[in-house]
Amino acid sequence: MSSCRFDVLGLGNAIVDVISQADDAFLLAQGLRKGAMRLIDESCADALYAAMGPAAFVSGGSAANTIIGAASLGCAAAFIGKVKSDEAGAAFVHDIRAAKVSYTTGLAEDGPATARCLVLVTPDAQRTMNTFLGASQNLTEADVDEEMVAQSAIVYLEGYLWDPPAAKAAFVKAAKIARGAGRKVALTLSDSFCVDRYRSEFLGLMRAGAIEILFANESELHSLYQTADFETAVAQLGAEKVLGVVTRSEKGSLIVTNGEALAVPAFPVEQVIDTTGAGDLFAAGFLAGLCKHKPLATCAQLGALAAAEVIQHIGARPLADLRQLAAQTGVAI
Amino acid sequence: MSSCRFDVLGLGNAIVDVISQADDAFLLAQGLRKGAMRLIDESCADALYAAMGPAAFVSGGSAANTIIGAASLGCAAAFIGKVKSDEAGAAFVHDIRAAKVSYTTGLAEDGPATARCLVLVTPDAQRTMNTFLGASQNLTEADVDEEMVAQSAIVYLEGYLWDPPAAKAAFVKAAKIARGAGRKVALTLSDSFCVDRYRSEFLGLMRAGAIEILFANESELHSLYQTADFETAVAQLGAEKVLGVVTRSEKGSLIVTNGEALAVPAFPVEQVIDTTGAGDLFAAGFLAGLCKHKPLATCAQLGALAAAEVIQHIGARPLADLRQLAAQTGVAI
Repeated sequence: MSSCRFDVLGLGNAIVDVISQADDAFLLAQGLRKGAMRLIDESCADALYAAMGPAAFVSGGSAANTIIGAASLGCAAAFIGKVKSDEAGAAFVHDIRAAKVSYTTGLAEDGPATARCLVLVTPDAQRTMNTFLGASQNLTEADVDEEMVAQSAIVYLEGYLWDPPAAKAAFVKAAKIARGAGRKVALTLSDSFCVDRYRSEFLGLMRAGAIEILFANESELHSLYQTADFETAVAQLGAEKVLGVVTRSEKGSLIVTNGEALAVPAFPVEQVIDTTGAGDLFAAGFLAGLCKHKPLATCAQLGALAAAEVIQHIGARPLADLRQLAAQTGVAI
Repeated sequence: MSSCRFDVLGLGNAIVDVISQADDAFLLAQGLRKGAMRLIDESCADALYAAMGPAAFVSGGSAANTIIGAASLGCAAAFIGKVKSDEAGAAFVHDIRAAKVSYTTGLAEDGPATARCLVLVTPDAQRTMNTFLGASQNLTEADVDEEMVAQSAIVYLEGYLWDPPAAKAAFVKAAKIARGAGRKVALTLSDSFCVDRYRSEFLGLMRAGAIEILFANESELHSLYQTADFETAVAQLGAEKVLGVVTRSEKGSLIVTNGEALAVPAFPVEQVIDTTGAGDLFAAGFLAGLCKHKPLATCAQLGALAAAEVIQHIGARPLADLRQLAAQTGVAI
């Protein structure tokens, strides 16, 4: 692999999170399934927002969170995703650039508003997400900067990207360019209901060799192989031709490759405040480790470290300098 | 005093905080004085925002924070302040109503954008504030709802309200109506540089009997009486015809009335994360105690409790239900 301008490039929905605290009764009254992500239209988003408590606006988006985490760990990082030229869009652009991520996707001048995800954080630190895709639906092939893709060692895609119809074409283009240039393609399954929607496509991509690294949590893995048995799902993942990374919350992670599984413990935390972004940041640490050619166990430790940081405060992006944090805690990066 | 529809009504600048972490080197490079609030114009706000790190958007404004804290402690609360009909304004309106505060001020349809305060939080938990007053400058006498003022047991005003020229007239009107209806008027001095700008007016208001309760921190009190000696400043405050409430960070507070001073300790905290809103929330607790006819020492304890909550997380408004918190910690409300 020739040397690259970027260590990692993310493609994903460009979203501003609207984060509020809520109790279980609120979720029940609104008919929301705790821990899941559901897609909503603008009027539903407006109605839910009106019913929600006071909220903080913080830039989010799964792949964007991951890329920012990787940048915080010292990776040269880039992102492709679509916002509108509105106040929320301006905040998204500011935040991703302020995190030293290359971001050059053109703003939508008309059409729906910048995507927002109404995140309800319950006292048990779980997050329930309601996404209005808005302008992120207008990401198309034309937004995929060929040179940027070809110059990125790893191209990282979120499963959520399958929800806006045009974005899939953007993914296919990016994956083709990446493969042609000898780069790696990684996919995160994003959400068990998202896997339900696109199971055969995700399996097809892996089996066609379009994806070399797969990130999933336990429920996404169960959904992918339609089994309630974890060992069965892991065995099936082990038979795929991918590097599988399975996150298991406080039980740590499992690296599955060539039919073997390596378990790595979670990073100890004092108090879990908000689990939003835990998976995104695990992926950030893991990818940063891969980019720096660390052993897989170290990659998983870096993932655990980054995830531990993000679940100890509200919001899905790190507040600490993750490279400093890694140095302080003795994890090599 | 006849019974009132509202326990407390706040008048103040309606602001959205844009909160970012920064180090001392950044403050130095930007020529910012740590811990102070300075007024900036829109182009300066844009330039500073561009230089800042990733930021969270959270509704703020000193008096608005106080009113929301009082509502969280079970007070019937209302607020008057001006935003524009833009995205930030919509968020401000949502948040204050979601906190169960009555808010009916008309939105500005044109003119400058909703006010924003660029808040830089340094690792020592201090906050440095840069305020673009925007639409809040368009608060006028016409926005003061006479019946709302007459129906509020306490009318609470922020010193910052003196900065937008037209707002002063709104204050004068509110204070007149309140006095006419036999209500109490409270003022917070807001910031030592704000006191520098309006010292003679603030002293004049107290001495004319227009204000019955005065909130100040140590540096504001020093600025008010132009002395570096705390005891001298307290003695001067004791000679005024007001109930004086002096906050002293970790040293607690001092209630000064009729020439006597009552010291009340601060509430113990594990880790101070962001001191933004500490004074605002102290005032919230104190006012809530007054509304519930608690002894002054209990009022100060409630203030200490509310301030302790807000300095343990990022943002100037409480995340916890303060009434529950008071119950858990055994402070009577």
